[in-house]
Amino acid sequence: MKLAVVGGGSTYTPELIDGFARLRDTLPISELVLVDPAADRLDLVGGLARRIFAKQGHPGKIVTTSDLDAGVEGADAVLLQLRVGGQAARQQDETWPLECGCVGQETTGAGGLAKALRTVPVVLDIAERVRRANPDAWIIDFTNPVGIVTRALLQAGHKAVGLCNVAIGLQRKFAALLQVTPAEVHLDHVGLNHLTWELGVRLGGPTGENVLPKLLAEHGDTVADELRLPRQVLDRLGVIPSYYLRYYYAHDEVVRELATKPSRAAEVAAMERELLTMYGDPALDEKPALLAKRGGAFYSEAAVDLAASLLGDGGSPVQVVNAYNNGTLPFLADDAVIEVPARIDASGAVPLAVPALDPLYAGLIAHVTAYEDLALEAALRGGRDRVFRALLAHPLVGQYDYADGLTDRLIAHNREHLAWA
Amino acid sequence: MKLAVVGGGSTYTPELIDGFARLRDTLPISELVLVDPAADRLDLVGGLARRIFAKQGHPGKIVTTSDLDAGVEGADAVLLQLRVGGQAARQQDETWPLECGCVGQETTGAGGLAKALRTVPVVLDIAERVRRANPDAWIIDFTNPVGIVTRALLQAGHKAVGLCNVAIGLQRKFAALLQVTPAEVHLDHVGLNHLTWELGVRLGGPTGENVLPKLLAEHGDTVADELRLPRQVLDRLGVIPSYYLRYYYAHDEVVRELATKPSRAAEVAAMERELLTMYGDPALDEKPALLAKRGGAFYSEAAVDLAASLLGDGGSPVQVVNAYNNGTLPFLADDAVIEVPARIDASGAVPLAVPALDPLYAGLIAHVTAYEDLALEAALRGGRDRVFRALLAHPLVGQYDYADGLTDRLIAHNREHLAWA
Amino acid sequence: MKLAVVGGGSTYTPELIDGFARLRDTLPISELVLVDPAADRLDLVGGLARRIFAKQGHPGKIVTTSDLDAGVEGADAVLLQLRVGGQAARQQDETWPLECGCVGQETTGAGGLAKALRTVPVVLDIAERVRRANPDAWIIDFTNPVGIVTRALLQAGHKAVGLCNVAIGLQRKFAALLQVTPAEVHLDHVGLNHLTWELGVRLGGPTGENVLPKLLAEHGDTVADELRLPRQVLDRLGVIPSYYLRYYYAHDEVVRELATKPSRAAEVAAMERELLTMYGDPALDEKPALLAKRGGAFYSEAAVDLAASLLGDGGSPVQVVNAYNNGTLPFLADDAVIEVPARIDASGAVPLAVPALDPLYAGLIAHVTAYEDLALEAALRGGRDRVFRALLAHPLVGQYDYADGLTDRLIAHNREHLAWA
Amino acid sequence: MKLAVVGGGSTYTPELIDGFARLRDTLPISELVLVDPAADRLDLVGGLARRIFAKQGHPGKIVTTSDLDAGVEGADAVLLQLRVGGQAARQQDETWPLECGCVGQETTGAGGLAKALRTVPVVLDIAERVRRANPDAWIIDFTNPVGIVTRALLQAGHKAVGLCNVAIGLQRKFAALLQVTPAEVHLDHVGLNHLTWELGVRLGGPTGENVLPKLLAEHGDTVADELRLPRQVLDRLGVIPSYYLRYYYAHDEVVRELATKPSRAAEVAAMERELLTMYGDPALDEKPALLAKRGGAFYSEAAVDLAASLLGDGGSPVQVVNAYNNGTLPFLADDAVIEVPARIDASGAVPLAVPALDPLYAGLIAHVTAYEDLALEAALRGGRDRVFRALLAHPLVGQYDYADGLTDRLIAHNREHLAWA
Repeated sequence: MKLAVVGGGSTYTPELIDGFARLRDTLPISELVLVDPAADRLDLVGGLARRIFAKQGHPGKIVTTSDLDAGVEGADAVLLQLRVGGQAARQQDETWPLECGCVGQETTGAGGLAKALRTVPVVLDIAERVRRANPDAWIIDFTNPVGIVTRALLQAGHKAVGLCNVAIGLQRKFAALLQVTPAEVHLDHVGLNHLTWELGVRLGGPTGENVLPKLLAEHGDTVADELRLPRQVLDRLGVIPSYYLRYYYAHDEVVRELATKPSRAAEVAAMERELLTMYGDPALDEKPALLAKRGGAFYSEAAVDLAASLLGDGGSPVQVVNAYNNGTLPFLADDAVIEVPARIDASGAVPLAVPALDPLYAGLIAHVTAYEDLALEAALRGGRDRVFRALLAHPLVGQYDYADGLTDRLIAHNREHLAWA
Repeated sequence: MKLAVVGGGSTYTPELIDGFARLRDTLPISELVLVDPAADRLDLVGGLARRIFAKQGHPGKIVTTSDLDAGVEGADAVLLQLRVGGQAARQQDETWPLECGCVGQETTGAGGLAKALRTVPVVLDIAERVRRANPDAWIIDFTNPVGIVTRALLQAGHKAVGLCNVAIGLQRKFAALLQVTPAEVHLDHVGLNHLTWELGVRLGGPTGENVLPKLLAEHGDTVADELRLPRQVLDRLGVIPSYYLRYYYAHDEVVRELATKPSRAAEVAAMERELLTMYGDPALDEKPALLAKRGGAFYSEAAVDLAASLLGDGGSPVQVVNAYNNGTLPFLADDAVIEVPARIDASGAVPLAVPALDPLYAGLIAHVTAYEDLALEAALRGGRDRVFRALLAHPLVGQYDYADGLTDRLIAHNREHLAWA
Repeated sequence: MKLAVVGGGSTYTPELIDGFARLRDTLPISELVLVDPAADRLDLVGGLARRIFAKQGHPGKIVTTSDLDAGVEGADAVLLQLRVGGQAARQQDETWPLECGCVGQETTGAGGLAKALRTVPVVLDIAERVRRANPDAWIIDFTNPVGIVTRALLQAGHKAVGLCNVAIGLQRKFAALLQVTPAEVHLDHVGLNHLTWELGVRLGGPTGENVLPKLLAEHGDTVADELRLPRQVLDRLGVIPSYYLRYYYAHDEVVRELATKPSRAAEVAAMERELLTMYGDPALDEKPALLAKRGGAFYSEAAVDLAASLLGDGGSPVQVVNAYNNGTLPFLADDAVIEVPARIDASGAVPLAVPALDPLYAGLIAHVTAYEDLALEAALRGGRDRVFRALLAHPLVGQYDYADGLTDRLIAHNREHLAWA
Repeated sequence: MKLAVVGGGSTYTPELIDGFARLRDTLPISELVLVDPAADRLDLVGGLARRIFAKQGHPGKIVTTSDLDAGVEGADAVLLQLRVGGQAARQQDETWPLECGCVGQETTGAGGLAKALRTVPVVLDIAERVRRANPDAWIIDFTNPVGIVTRALLQAGHKAVGLCNVAIGLQRKFAALLQVTPAEVHLDHVGLNHLTWELGVRLGGPTGENVLPKLLAEHGDTVADELRLPRQVLDRLGVIPSYYLRYYYAHDEVVRELATKPSRAAEVAAMERELLTMYGDPALDEKPALLAKRGGAFYSEAAVDLAASLLGDGGSPVQVVNAYNNGTLPFLADDAVIEVPARIDASGAVPLAVPALDPLYAGLIAHVTAYEDLALEAALRGGRDRVFRALLAHPLVGQYDYADGLTDRLIAHNREHLAWA
């Protein structure tokens, strides 16, 4: 079994490698290719990756290359974890929307649109080259904004599944609080990528007992702290919104918070430099503790689980992924991409049925899906007017003059990444 | 043919009476009952109504009564045009939402929810009494918020159609600009009550030539001024949003405008006093010019046309009304109430087919429909939590703490009208 | 010694009576007159006042009257503690400014201006009648906004001193934290009423050791909590701003807080009703514990101390009061009224010298003083334009369109209290 | 007579040169030195400058140099017109404050503080080198923020006068409207640099007839349009605020405007490139029309007039400049720098007396002066805390959390220009 990781030079990669090593029974990789245009980083990350495999006795071979076509040749699955424009572009996404009173965030709001516009053409090009190299290969997209990127891939006919670590992170968190194993916890997770609610937390599987009320009663404060949402929101709703719902439910508070605190950019950049220095140490043969602060927890578990199911039968039968709606949420088009528990096997992902959704969630999901339609349109076809329309359609923008101001800024800050600008 | 007008003591009524007089060939009324609990106003308005009929030689009889059951007895159609809590409640709806940075408006946003909560139980009680008096009678609802009220009526099984004068007003405006007769102008009007866009302006009927581009090119500034929306919004979108879209597309600007200008309340109240004084003048036998400033233009034309079609065959075959969606907009539930052109006859209203809607409009419509679901739930069943949920679901609120502050204010200012509060 | 309390029917009065009883050695009152137009309340409050005196063995006589001229006749000092328009007006002051995004508060911002406009003419009329009754009587003004009201009194030539309980409250708080007696604590208190900073906290008097750094180091969190200001503000500044500086230093946060919580009005009104019911109980002969929740702590101590110094020699030699600047703060006019420690004796209050003030405080003080100039002008002479100018001059307003919106609202909500409106 | 212009490579310089040529009778320059570190620009600008002099027959010699010490050697007066960090820094000043809801502007608010911090040390170093080269030379500061920079120069004992073109621009505008010569128009101009009001417009000199009421009555709309302030503000106040008062009187409106329009940066940069290209054309021998769009109108007239008075007797006896207060505004310290009409001669500038100022203006002037005190302190001594204090003292900031967020951003965006950061 051969896997390729595009964006393999990311400082996150050792997290993934560690998972591949630990979970080699689930996903028996014989060859792992790390592909990245940044050869220097790739050297550092690849070296550590090999030492991690060696230390844990993983027999697989690790190859590094900056040649995409060579790297994906013969791969059974390709993981996409790239960041067009790097941390500098992320820093921009987090900054200029604030000038217009909007949240600065790399997946939500105007910053998320910028990331989509930069990313979709690059990912589609990669996918096309993957298809040419191996039409049967699965593409697992971990690249944000996962919902829009996955939809772009599916619409172009690729064998793709979108993956995010929000659901698995909550599953692990809840399992710990409930003192059960993660595998016992099934989430009634529903929505769009980064716009999800846990409507139920079940023990033993999709039809197990819903212990969400008990979880909230006994651990509500812990959960609320984790999500940085007020406890009262959880109690009022009786469900658990994802961390990203803060950008909606507490929009003005978040904007104020972002405006009155220093940007995380310098801090993250410093952490990356520190990590890369560590990775260069030939004595280091495990992922350093500092990596945990970079986010992305349980990404490797999720990726291994998903790849195992897509490529064989080693993974969990039901996993939370991004896939075509196909009637699951009847108020969305079939070709909308939603994030829900799905049955995964070698033929792909089939969402489980979802009971009728409370309008409190359905309304926002429908609105954001409409934005995603227009965002994808803008990403595929370009043009100032399409950017404006996507922003006007976004529930966090919605006003014509702010949409205008944001459009100008988005284009000015991303010109080098937008072929049409 | 007998008609009853509930809320007949309104200062608007002479507008309606004038229409009944002018259009008596279309709608041959033999008896008109004005029903209103405010006997004093009713006397003034009823007196003028009779003089208007007399002057124009209308043979119909006009009866006034404060007894609802007696008034609707035997009526073929009942028009609802009431305002629970009167202008004082409207003044409140326009004021306290501003304290939370939200638009103060009697149909949109938190003020609109307050009006829905006050109105739905009263209207359902009236409708029930109409049904007891005459199960075949049509109910024409002109009472705001028309979308929610109509849905409440339909869900309770009433023979009801919702009516608003926004579409007919635009039709007349466009006809004048295009120098054609109103009957020649068909609007591709779509959305929810007070959340509509004209996607096309056709000459000659639903399949006629779309002259919207020409209308915008030649009269864009005039239309924009009328709607108090910037011309650029019309040009950018290529469609004509209704005046009420200002509350969305220019939300912060409207809030600032409302905050920095005196409330219209004193002005409106003064106008109402002046009108009533005029109505008391036995020499007055036509609707005074001042009435035109009260809004509601072409309401009588719309009401006559609708009643004529429902009760016979005198009206236009296609009219813009509020009715069950029934698949017209596939992203909404069948029992959502939408505002679109519909075929009207004695069996009721059947929406014309609508082509696939641009996500730019569909997203907002879906979101507001979700709010309307929860608003109706709160109106029917009451409770602080249901009010909170409806506000959190509203795209113009959406934040938990503002939803909280608005909920408290809504209840405090409407306690006397809310049985459960 | 005869004292009159104008507004004696206030629910606060038992706090004052209790102080008179406890501190009778400092201020030996022979006759106390409670004056209030609200005869019913006065009966309830007067009855309890007499029982408190009786229980504590105070020999003084307590008289109640609604006749102001009779009540102040022969009084050596008159305390003013009235509220024009009552709690209903306060409720308004706390509400309508929020419609324009401004704090709703009865002494700060637009609400404070409304209170000044209502209050100044009433207080000047009372003062004139006091002067006619007894030209030698001292007027102690506890009526808000104390700074503007005191200035109005002084400009009209009255023997007046302005009093607020902010300073004495902090003195007692700090004494408790430092475990010393209140008398040992001297505050380097400087600014305008409700716009003050403690620049030093000295032990033993104006030249004693400054223990403010120690107080902040050891009890900073406690002090910050008490003032509802973030600890970091105290540490950054190295001084202790009064609670009212929140309205400036955390303006938007306070507006949001006021917008998202229910108004305190209903709560306060309920408390007042409960207190009055208690006062009517003939068995009650002490101030009830509930009274402590009404605010105004240590008002009686401050009032006794001030009256004792003005009328004899029983009070503290240095007390924080509101008096003419007379060069104390060189950047303000001599006839500005400031709130600082002053030497008090039978000839009145003479501010202690204040070292050169940090521009960080001086700039804001100068700006607010300019507002107070114009506020007093508006209170004395009336007129929409003067109200507008005062609001435009206020650092928390400062924008012409908000000043306009606030002016309209102020006038609409206070018309019955404004002779010129 | 020898003049040096530091920052002589600016694209503005041809405006100045044109003035020197036209007004050579007033200011007979024999040698003009353009000093600029940017040798390329200097070449282009210097070439055009020589051609302008040649065409107009000015006999003076024009020297260009990047060596400051050499350039100012022997100069009778040195004009400072530099921009530390260039247009890129200006672009930053106009941008990041918006992230915190504050105006983005290079002299007002947080952006203005950034400019002061970058500029003061550079200007003081230049001034010190001027003093060493020629202790008798006058320094004319046109470098923004002029008020703070002039104060820094005066406090360091330099022979300096601050100059801005706002007053002369209004004088010329009013003269045109009144159809008189500029010399006939005297402005009762008062305040701080970029915070001024015209309290009177007099014909014939400081004691001439005040025609401001007539000017407003007849040309109010024109003046208001020019200043981009609403006519109503002018009528209400009865005085003419400078354009920069928009940032105060219409703060939120300006922020919204800045947030919803593209930044002028690209446009200005394009214009600069175009101008430099033009300047390089050896056929060009006059200032191009495009230059008028760059702002700075009448700067040359003002500079010639001021230099003529300081160096001889050719200039107007009274000119609006920035100089020490020295009791002119009694509520400010003597060493505050104010902008008012002053008598200018070889001994420097002496402000004319100013009548008692309306608190509506005095309050804001005092507040901003306090900010300027702290801004200068921060510029001279550095440190995050001093930056924070200056921002907290600014009437357009004033809140601790925004002051914090702005402090972080100011430092992050200006680190290379701040020795202490």
